Amino acid sequence: MKKTYKCKICRQETAIYLREHRLALCRGHYIAWFERYVSRTINQFKMFRRQDRILVGVSGGKDSLTVWLVLNRLGYQADGFFLDLGIPDFSELSYFKGRDFAAVHGLKFQRLSMKDLIGVCLPDLERKTRKVCSLCGAVKRALFNKLAKEMGYQVIVTGHNLDDEASSLLSNVVNWSLKYLARKYPVLPEGGGFVRKAKPLCRSSVKEIRLYAELNDIDYLADPCPFSENATRLVYAEEMERLEEAFPGAKRRFYIEYLRKAYPVFHKEMERFMEKPLTTCSRCQEPAVNDPCLICRIKAEASGRL
Amino acid sequence: MKKTYKCKICRQETAIYLREHRLALCRGHYIAWFERYVSRTINQFKMFRRQDRILVGVSGGKDSLTVWLVLNRLGYQADGFFLDLGIPDFSELSYFKGRDFAAVHGLKFQRLSMKDLIGVCLPDLERKTRKVCSLCGAVKRALFNKLAKEMGYQVIVTGHNLDDEASSLLSNVVNWSLKYLARKYPVLPEGGGFVRKAKPLCRSSVKEIRLYAELNDIDYLADPCPFSENATRLVYAEEMERLEEAFPGAKRRFYIEYLRKAYPVFHKEMERFMEKPLTTCSRCQEPAVNDPCLICRIKAEASGRL
Repeated sequence: MKKTYKCKICRQETAIYLREHRLALCRGHYIAWFERYVSRTINQFKMFRRQDRILVGVSGGKDSLTVWLVLNRLGYQADGFFLDLGIPDFSELSYFKGRDFAAVHGLKFQRLSMKDLIGVCLPDLERKTRKVCSLCGAVKRALFNKLAKEMGYQVIVTGHNLDDEASSLLSNVVNWSLKYLARKYPVLPEGGGFVRKAKPLCRSSVKEIRLYAELNDIDYLADPCPFSENATRLVYAEEMERLEEAFPGAKRRFYIEYLRKAYPVFHKEMERFMEKPLTTCSRCQEPAVNDPCLICRIKAEASGRL
Repeated sequence: MKKTYKCKICRQETAIYLREHRLALCRGHYIAWFERYVSRTINQFKMFRRQDRILVGVSGGKDSLTVWLVLNRLGYQADGFFLDLGIPDFSELSYFKGRDFAAVHGLKFQRLSMKDLIGVCLPDLERKTRKVCSLCGAVKRALFNKLAKEMGYQVIVTGHNLDDEASSLLSNVVNWSLKYLARKYPVLPEGGGFVRKAKPLCRSSVKEIRLYAELNDIDYLADPCPFSENATRLVYAEEMERLEEAFPGAKRRFYIEYLRKAYPVFHKEMERFMEKPLTTCSRCQEPAVNDPCLICRIKAEASGRL
């Protein structure tokens, strides 16, 4: 016989049991709990304020749609933005999910295409490099930052969840990538040409987000990107899952205790870990690792005048 | 057909191939290589000098017998010490391995019994506590330190290998035990009532040590302690093995890069991580976490006058 639980708030039966939090909640109270948890994350890390204009990077997956909905329900001004990478079928499908979601919830949503912006799409890059995932990440970060500023947004929000953060932390630690560890924090301040960046779902697990998305009938894209064959990331994700199985709550503790105890130690010495200081691209005036910046180099190559 | 290798030094066939080091060596040159590698570890971390009197903690296993032999072959004055924990059969067998080894190699070896020293043996403690492994570790560390000083040794050497160090590092990191991380170094200096402690095999893997022990016909005890049922430690050891399989060399890089890059950062802030400063036991004058110290409390309890 399956055990049934009563909601801690309304005593209704057939509630959802959150083992890690030792908490049983009905559907309605789960939704409220999840939103309050995200709200507490936002406040705890001083991510942003009511008056900030927020741009949510929307991929059409459960994480980005969930964070977008929660922010609006919590009363923040959060608009959606979709960067069309031009991946056949996948990009179209991703866009539709975002567009339909925006329509259902009456949210502001816009789409810009990588091809229009810099002259190439992701499949063009994919043919040239084996490291398409990290290149895609760098391109997205740079374009998001530039576009957010141009459109007058103060904050960029992404849907990174606890599982993402814990497994990438494990990877950073196993490789002792101190320059990443020193900046691994769920909010990065504005300044030096960067807008503020925040990850309000950093303390919410994949399970919790999926449940929230399903209870809210969010129609999201569950397929992974066809170009993502990031075996390395998968190894760390599996390692983290095994630790979680052996020591329930390990994933959350590992990440939260990092933020509380180890991050301040690394952050304090950040300057020492940076391989070289950031510069400003002489072509587009954006902050950059090299001059010209990645985006301007891709643009130049695309137009044949490097 | 099995691939055969030629020794890099003497070109002799049927050599041992060390994949991680991309090095093929015959038996004789492997032994020389292993010893030189340990010698370099000793020098790199400034573990001890020729004139230091060294006490090796001998368990009868491959690690402690190997480090003992290597130190003597490298010309250090290293005597063996066996603490008899009084574990039925196991302690006897361990002792015999150490005693016979000492006889074969003409080394100085002594045995003292926990029961004689503090009135109880490990099985007595095991009946009272579930954390017998960590208690055993604390008792051994305290007794070794006290006895080494009394017998005029400047350094205590233990056989901890790379696999031990990497998996305990992983455990410390996953739990962000900063007070351990800040002191996780293969040599700890003398001072404050402590003698110097060193782990010359910290960069040698289990595989390398086992091979060295076998090529030298070391008759060691391969059985684990019957009280060790340290499931937690096993989880981290398995995690580390999986990382090693996915990324060959990961274990060594994780540990060595920790020492090089992250340890200095943690060590610098050590004072902040210590929960409380060490004190001196008012009964035995040894350094201690509490007063009376663990050993004096066990002694008092054993003699019925707590």
